[in-house]
Amino acid sequence: MKIIKYPNRSTWNELLKRPEIDRSELESVVTKIFNDIKNNGDKAVLNYTFKYDKVKLSTIIVSEGEIAEAKKLVNDSLKKAITEARNNIERFHISQNIPTKIIETTQGVKCWQKSTPIKKVGLYVPGGTAPLFSTVLMLGIPAMIARCKEIVLCSPPGKDGKLAPSILYTADLIGIKKIFKTGGVQAIGAMAFGTESVPKVYKIFGPGNQYVMAAKQKVNLEGIAIDMPAGPSEVAVIADKTSNPAYVASDLLAQAEHGKDSQVILFTTEAGIIQDVLKELDQQLVELPRKDIASVALENSKAIILGNEVDLMDMVNEYAPEHLIISIDDAEKLGDKVLNAGSVFLGHLTPESAGDYASGTNHTLPTKGFAKAYNGVNLDSFVKKITFQQISENGIFNIGPTIEMMAMEENLYGHKNSISIRLNKVINK
Amino acid sequence: MKIIKYPNRSTWNELLKRPEIDRSELESVVTKIFNDIKNNGDKAVLNYTFKYDKVKLSTIIVSEGEIAEAKKLVNDSLKKAITEARNNIERFHISQNIPTKIIETTQGVKCWQKSTPIKKVGLYVPGGTAPLFSTVLMLGIPAMIARCKEIVLCSPPGKDGKLAPSILYTADLIGIKKIFKTGGVQAIGAMAFGTESVPKVYKIFGPGNQYVMAAKQKVNLEGIAIDMPAGPSEVAVIADKTSNPAYVASDLLAQAEHGKDSQVILFTTEAGIIQDVLKELDQQLVELPRKDIASVALENSKAIILGNEVDLMDMVNEYAPEHLIISIDDAEKLGDKVLNAGSVFLGHLTPESAGDYASGTNHTLPTKGFAKAYNGVNLDSFVKKITFQQISENGIFNIGPTIEMMAMEENLYGHKNSISIRLNKVINK
Repeated sequence: MKIIKYPNRSTWNELLKRPEIDRSELESVVTKIFNDIKNNGDKAVLNYTFKYDKVKLSTIIVSEGEIAEAKKLVNDSLKKAITEARNNIERFHISQNIPTKIIETTQGVKCWQKSTPIKKVGLYVPGGTAPLFSTVLMLGIPAMIARCKEIVLCSPPGKDGKLAPSILYTADLIGIKKIFKTGGVQAIGAMAFGTESVPKVYKIFGPGNQYVMAAKQKVNLEGIAIDMPAGPSEVAVIADKTSNPAYVASDLLAQAEHGKDSQVILFTTEAGIIQDVLKELDQQLVELPRKDIASVALENSKAIILGNEVDLMDMVNEYAPEHLIISIDDAEKLGDKVLNAGSVFLGHLTPESAGDYASGTNHTLPTKGFAKAYNGVNLDSFVKKITFQQISENGIFNIGPTIEMMAMEENLYGHKNSISIRLNKVINK
Repeated sequence: MKIIKYPNRSTWNELLKRPEIDRSELESVVTKIFNDIKNNGDKAVLNYTFKYDKVKLSTIIVSEGEIAEAKKLVNDSLKKAITEARNNIERFHISQNIPTKIIETTQGVKCWQKSTPIKKVGLYVPGGTAPLFSTVLMLGIPAMIARCKEIVLCSPPGKDGKLAPSILYTADLIGIKKIFKTGGVQAIGAMAFGTESVPKVYKIFGPGNQYVMAAKQKVNLEGIAIDMPAGPSEVAVIADKTSNPAYVASDLLAQAEHGKDSQVILFTTEAGIIQDVLKELDQQLVELPRKDIASVALENSKAIILGNEVDLMDMVNEYAPEHLIISIDDAEKLGDKVLNAGSVFLGHLTPESAGDYASGTNHTLPTKGFAKAYNGVNLDSFVKKITFQQISENGIFNIGPTIEMMAMEENLYGHKNSISIRLNKVINK
């Protein structure tokens, strides 16, 4: 951990910078794979699955037999845990449903928004060193609550040519029917353009490595919506003399174990606590199975000491962390001052892990400072709000002249005429 | 107008296709201008304003004197109309405010979303053949309601080196302080990267031509959020034997006058009404000042006759029009079946112009089929919803074991430990 004391505001930008990725090489790989999928469909997807995931499959479609087998392989206590997490995530996302409100803006002029599901959505669940079945919950539950009609899930197969039982069990539990064994750029391409097996979707969700991200950004340019841009995962922890150094260290390590590029920052106004946290980090690190990964991330991590609370919150808001843990006694007070963050964890007993798995909030969150303009996935991510309006005779009488006047000022006489022709009829009735 | 009778479903995609734009040339222009702005700031912006808008300015900053002058130049009846539109748009967008709801997902586990303004936003108001002051209302009002701190407005100057009085008057009325005389790619670049005069923003809003759109998509790749992708404006009108052909024709023309590339489609199950609408189109067209533009758009427009209501609504939803006018007696019935559209206008007396200017709904809407996954600009476009959570001793006791179990299944023992270390303390207290 690098310790930075009282940095001058002019240095903040440089201090808070995330690693930049050279996109040019990514782009040529993505373009090549996409063209191949557009031309050769499933065959191309199977080839890339062999090339990158090292398994030769005859189909990427997950069979009912595989799902039945998965249900047997997941033990009861994990099933219970998944169900409890499902219930919490469901409760929180259902609460985001908003009833339609009809607003009469002027007498006789009614306007409203109606939430309408995005019909076809694609969920990407990364593979790699662990089966991330929690991402199935985080993307699948709001998609089901929103009533998206076609929910497609892609995830890369393991060396055995299968998806992890926990992923299949969870997908089946929440009702996802179309599951495919393919990952990386080829999965994004399959969902964006469609293949013989994989339906083409309107919006693609989910985390992934830099190739997956480049693929999502490229399909976005071609008209497919995506949840958000993304970079490596991040945590910022705010600590003071009321903090428990062991708790703080455990939160920093939970982030650091994600990947070597994980971003970990400790913010404090109390220089005194840093040594206690460092001591705890050393002790806890040696116990971690993923200590090799975590220690690389920790080397690049920072502890930043600020002179006062104002500077501290200004710098945190400038960083706009994906996760912000406020691990102090009076967490609400600083919580009220958060302007930019993906998800905020208040108090000593609210670690990021809670939100990663089971508290109810979503774990698909904006990284890389995108929290300045984006929020994480929520129910709204799976719907679009169509506006409706209905105008009565009285209404057109009331606002018609206003519209005519404005249309004329914009030199749009066709617009004016669409009002006049109605207004005249209503007036001369 | 091309008349298409009972098209087979297999032909729908081809029929509903929007014109494709060759992006490669756009991209090189955009890249060149952006690099110049990054290196030379205001100087570059002034040069491109001279090159493209044919005016030599010494500064792009709109002065207080210019605003004072604009206030004098706008006549009282236009001021009254703008104020009435402002009030309606304000009422509708204020109604989109949602109070924070704290949800206890499990005893002792509280989660909530908090709407937080995007601090710095850029509003782009196109110039061209008319001063689009209505766009100032549509973007500026929700930005003010959301309490965005820094609201930047850019619009290209006229030949006199000034912005239209109606644009300046409207911007001042709703409280926008930072107004710049620059348009096109250089305006998007200035707001995305910042110059000596123009503050760098986090999200850019507003319509524009294909260059503006390419510029917005490029800054989006560099981490600046944008409201939505966009193509030429569109209307779909649904008519039947209850429709008034004059009204229908006026709505088609209002769209056609926007630009030669405007997309205009009439959907009906009643072949009989087409001739009446065509006759009205001919009569009304000759009266239009912008008939040269409208007639080109009309040549490419289509009247599509479907065999029944199911086919009709399926095809409309497949088209996903920016504007959908349901100009029939029982408009609500079909309105309930709309799955994809930007904004819907119900009944004979609800023309698109109402929503373009003054009913209260927003006129910045998804075109080109993007309504399948995107909605128009609303209050949510100017905020992000930060999730918060707070867990008590009871809460960590209740969900701790679930989180431990899930973290272990994902091989993330650091995650597990951040729970265990707290759980042990709570249990052994």
